[in-house]
Amino acid sequence: MVVIMKKKASEEDIEAVITNLNAFGFDVHRSSGINQTVLGAIGVRPGFNHRIIRGLSGVADVQRVTEPYKLASRVGRETSSVVGVGNLEIGGSAITVMAGLRSIERETRVSEAATRIAASGASLFRGSTLKPRTSFYEFQGVEQEGFRMMRRAADESALKLVMEVSSMAQVEPVSEHADVLLVQAHNMQNFELLRGLGQSKKPILLERGLAATVQEWLMAAEHIMRSGNENVILCERGIRTFESATRYTLDLSAVSVAKIKSHLPIFVDPCQGTGMRDYVISLACAAVAAGADGIAIDVHHDPPSASSNGLQALNFDQFAELIVQVRKVADAVGRRLQP
Amino acid sequence: MVVIMKKKASEEDIEAVITNLNAFGFDVHRSSGINQTVLGAIGVRPGFNHRIIRGLSGVADVQRVTEPYKLASRVGRETSSVVGVGNLEIGGSAITVMAGLRSIERETRVSEAATRIAASGASLFRGSTLKPRTSFYEFQGVEQEGFRMMRRAADESALKLVMEVSSMAQVEPVSEHADVLLVQAHNMQNFELLRGLGQSKKPILLERGLAATVQEWLMAAEHIMRSGNENVILCERGIRTFESATRYTLDLSAVSVAKIKSHLPIFVDPCQGTGMRDYVISLACAAVAAGADGIAIDVHHDPPSASSNGLQALNFDQFAELIVQVRKVADAVGRRLQP
Amino acid sequence: MVVIMKKKASEEDIEAVITNLNAFGFDVHRSSGINQTVLGAIGVRPGFNHRIIRGLSGVADVQRVTEPYKLASRVGRETSSVVGVGNLEIGGSAITVMAGLRSIERETRVSEAATRIAASGASLFRGSTLKPRTSFYEFQGVEQEGFRMMRRAADESALKLVMEVSSMAQVEPVSEHADVLLVQAHNMQNFELLRGLGQSKKPILLERGLAATVQEWLMAAEHIMRSGNENVILCERGIRTFESATRYTLDLSAVSVAKIKSHLPIFVDPCQGTGMRDYVISLACAAVAAGADGIAIDVHHDPPSASSNGLQALNFDQFAELIVQVRKVADAVGRRLQP
Amino acid sequence: MVVIMKKKASEEDIEAVITNLNAFGFDVHRSSGINQTVLGAIGVRPGFNHRIIRGLSGVADVQRVTEPYKLASRVGRETSSVVGVGNLEIGGSAITVMAGLRSIERETRVSEAATRIAASGASLFRGSTLKPRTSFYEFQGVEQEGFRMMRRAADESALKLVMEVSSMAQVEPVSEHADVLLVQAHNMQNFELLRGLGQSKKPILLERGLAATVQEWLMAAEHIMRSGNENVILCERGIRTFESATRYTLDLSAVSVAKIKSHLPIFVDPCQGTGMRDYVISLACAAVAAGADGIAIDVHHDPPSASSNGLQALNFDQFAELIVQVRKVADAVGRRLQP
Repeated sequence: MVVIMKKKASEEDIEAVITNLNAFGFDVHRSSGINQTVLGAIGVRPGFNHRIIRGLSGVADVQRVTEPYKLASRVGRETSSVVGVGNLEIGGSAITVMAGLRSIERETRVSEAATRIAASGASLFRGSTLKPRTSFYEFQGVEQEGFRMMRRAADESALKLVMEVSSMAQVEPVSEHADVLLVQAHNMQNFELLRGLGQSKKPILLERGLAATVQEWLMAAEHIMRSGNENVILCERGIRTFESATRYTLDLSAVSVAKIKSHLPIFVDPCQGTGMRDYVISLACAAVAAGADGIAIDVHHDPPSASSNGLQALNFDQFAELIVQVRKVADAVGRRLQP
Repeated sequence: MVVIMKKKASEEDIEAVITNLNAFGFDVHRSSGINQTVLGAIGVRPGFNHRIIRGLSGVADVQRVTEPYKLASRVGRETSSVVGVGNLEIGGSAITVMAGLRSIERETRVSEAATRIAASGASLFRGSTLKPRTSFYEFQGVEQEGFRMMRRAADESALKLVMEVSSMAQVEPVSEHADVLLVQAHNMQNFELLRGLGQSKKPILLERGLAATVQEWLMAAEHIMRSGNENVILCERGIRTFESATRYTLDLSAVSVAKIKSHLPIFVDPCQGTGMRDYVISLACAAVAAGADGIAIDVHHDPPSASSNGLQALNFDQFAELIVQVRKVADAVGRRLQP
Repeated sequence: MVVIMKKKASEEDIEAVITNLNAFGFDVHRSSGINQTVLGAIGVRPGFNHRIIRGLSGVADVQRVTEPYKLASRVGRETSSVVGVGNLEIGGSAITVMAGLRSIERETRVSEAATRIAASGASLFRGSTLKPRTSFYEFQGVEQEGFRMMRRAADESALKLVMEVSSMAQVEPVSEHADVLLVQAHNMQNFELLRGLGQSKKPILLERGLAATVQEWLMAAEHIMRSGNENVILCERGIRTFESATRYTLDLSAVSVAKIKSHLPIFVDPCQGTGMRDYVISLACAAVAAGADGIAIDVHHDPPSASSNGLQALNFDQFAELIVQVRKVADAVGRRLQP
Repeated sequence: MVVIMKKKASEEDIEAVITNLNAFGFDVHRSSGINQTVLGAIGVRPGFNHRIIRGLSGVADVQRVTEPYKLASRVGRETSSVVGVGNLEIGGSAITVMAGLRSIERETRVSEAATRIAASGASLFRGSTLKPRTSFYEFQGVEQEGFRMMRRAADESALKLVMEVSSMAQVEPVSEHADVLLVQAHNMQNFELLRGLGQSKKPILLERGLAATVQEWLMAAEHIMRSGNENVILCERGIRTFESATRYTLDLSAVSVAKIKSHLPIFVDPCQGTGMRDYVISLACAAVAAGADGIAIDVHHDPPSASSNGLQALNFDQFAELIVQVRKVADAVGRRLQP
């Protein structure tokens, strides 16, 4: 941490800051020029709130040197993490494809979806029984029977099942059925939920919040990890910007940044990120070229008739075509597609 | 709803869209030009998901005519709502001031804070026992004893108590102590929580999400109202933009917009919105000039020593000064300060 | 400037950075902890590009201590600047109102506009003969006869005339007629133009760019000032964010920030900032409450018929009403309205 | 264009709008429901300012049906454009690599750069003699001798030369030396410059503005095309968002969007887009996978010593490595690298 004193800071101000830093266990080095003094506080105190120092008299600015996360950081852990889901390895040399439905369908439809995506090359099946909607009036999912239906469909096609959890109370019941627990973007800073997931044994797929920086996203991952569960997979799914041609702005730079700052595997969801089917295949290819470890795709047997988000879903033929394209790009960047 | 067909849409496409709209109960009027057909779907179906139509063959675009909220809308309800908190009226001609602490303090400190802010002119006291932090390592509030301490402090100074709820499980215990339940920005789209609050009898103070449009914010309010609780108060507290001189960008236009689109009362929180004490008084005045019904201010007996957000808190003298300034602006815009 | 070395930086890396900093004239203080070294570079080199140091081997980060502008900074210049336009003083205790047309009108209309706004209390008249449009097909202003017409109208009503310049070539001809030269948002980083304006004797009204931080805006002001013209007035007119209820997001925090960081006067333009007439009066009041030294308003004798931006313009009665409201707020914050 | 009337609109309001639309040459179809009337205005009037109608009495909203650009649109022009630069074809099946320097160097350095990038596979050489800087104090390029030096270096290595123009006055002198004229992001809405470029015979490389939507970018292209020069190449180089881990947010969705909305070729500049060398190779690969027709890369013989933007430049070995990677991805998506 570096503390920059104001030009007008008195000697007393400076000494009070040094005393404070020492009290918190930092080793302090002082650099005084003609106009201004700068203090270097050396020491690792990950939980230290630097805003305490920022508020002291005479302080102009305080700047962090180390990132505010540690378990999620690549510093001191140079090998990329591999998260195991049964026999499936996420984050290794192979690229994983997740596909799923955004709305409740009849069991034959769910089963058909699982069969079709497995045949094309997906390894993870995402169910969507719990999706809350932004508008009260829009479709609300039914829950319990959905869990079992999804599980059966996944098992029939030897897929791993990914299910959303949106509150602490859901962690246990959903964990009975699902192989991976999905935290949606709007819950990325639901800290109660994050702590609950830290006590789960299931891998967590953590979507980036719409307005979250990469740093905040990694801090959310840290929250889960610090609470006891290190099996976290990141998922970029678009941030909110002024551009309205797409629903959100898919931030593929974030893949590069997260791969360098963190050892955690990272997925990209171009369906949510763009909101438009036409852009999905090219951006799925781009995600893999950028270094993503997996992609997440919405499918539907007949997207225009889907009760939720049909606009961004691919039909099964389009999904198969996507796999063909993504496979070529994966090869080009020295990776391959699961399984 | 207006459906714009593609230039290449076939007659069959057009008829299929009309059939679909009729099936949902819309009255359809067709306008065909040389190149393009436009369909006007007349009828009010608040829960209708227009994306279903958007996905049909031959459709270029679908545009909503009515807003996707109804109970929160000013349309059909021209008088501004007044939300009662005991004998306190929020949203009437008087402007309400809420002040509170962001961190746990000893009981004498809490009591002192309540006494001081009440003496200066606040009507609402915000406690902060449940605040989750973005970093795992930062301070975590202790809970149960905090509730009672806050309640006593509020009662001693005849203040109404505002407490945060961050999950369904907290609604009941917090409701036992608090007069108003606060939904923080990061929970604005926690729909499970919103529905739970719909069943509460307490007024809800609903912060705008960091990346939420005014429309989404009013849709969140609608969610609570539709679930049974119409006592919703909005609170603008900054949105995330590229500007880094302030923590967030306080969006005072949103006050004007929300006052015109909705009948609900609206607060503004310049402390969270800017993150810097120096900007708070001028922006509190600006909020009242823009039409806000209340302001929310962080206070602390010694802000630099606060364990959380001290940088944005005022000390009691600064708070008293703020009240003096805000009172003058309230008078200038034809209102007055509570009580 | 503070240089933070990587944990893995070698002793050679550290010495190379110190040598480099010394070569540029900085006095360097070194703080080495167990894991990491921090270098404090003391000295004021306003033109120094800190990215040079950022690129050296072993450097993790470089952080500026001083702002990258000097003449525009309040540091060392605590009194707010007053910019004189003839006998009119901008930035003193009085608040200045500018009003003007966005489209070419017949001379009687221009003259009527000047008369009406002067009668209500405006001091500055903004002409709009040169406005380029974002779409090629939209209205293009005619130029030369416009200059003289505007000048006559201003003179008849004893108003000062503000005219836009959008390229170096326009500086001289426009300066012959105008009292203040206006740099529009999209030219805020047209550095050739800024340098040209530095050689002008006319005060410059510098709009903030849509995507410019306050720091970049002050750096643009610095560019003009350093080139020889210190008479710069800032104008906030909205930034681009995700919110679409308003055309841009008027950033009133920027008024507070700019008043603290800089001694320059600042205007706010709520018409451009919101794009909607309905929001203009309340935000003009808010701007004055936030500390603005002036406001800029679009007027038109019949806004719906205006060929450009009629949606955001007030008619003369609405403008008169705005002045009444703004005057009350100005009084409430201890200022008064010109003249 | 679709005109949505307010619920309270009178019959007179409705008729006045219809009369107005007819006067502008639109064919109007009226749809009246119980509560509300919608008017469909059929006809193509690319230069029509729909805000005129928006401001009429009783109008709730006006929505465009057709995009506000025509020559740049893919509608009616399904084949992607190929822009010829001498014998080089941009936008065909081959992918073009542009590389260049951001700062003035000695002639041997410039010549070395051209030789090295040509040997690795670049076809376009970008000079940077005119770059204005955001800070007055930073490096200012020297001009005239730079032109000739750049030209010689390009010719020696059989590269085409790309040079920036930042004002009308530069168009002619720069055109004498350069093969392609580059419009930087901050000039994307410098309409005077755009019109001047419309009269040039040289191909134009048009960077997207930091805060420009894809639609506005295509409108800027339209401006040049409508003024007489249809040889426009787009260049995505990052937009401004809240994320601060990268300098800007490279918007690769914009590549997909622009390819579908427009027939123009598109480049991507990952160096400017991220501001950090470490992210450049993976994002260059992602850009090609997303459908870009070319990439723009900053190089330097010793990036840490560059006087401008060294942080984002690759050295020649890194550039050669980038070409190897990009070539594989180009093959994977069915394209190949020039030449």
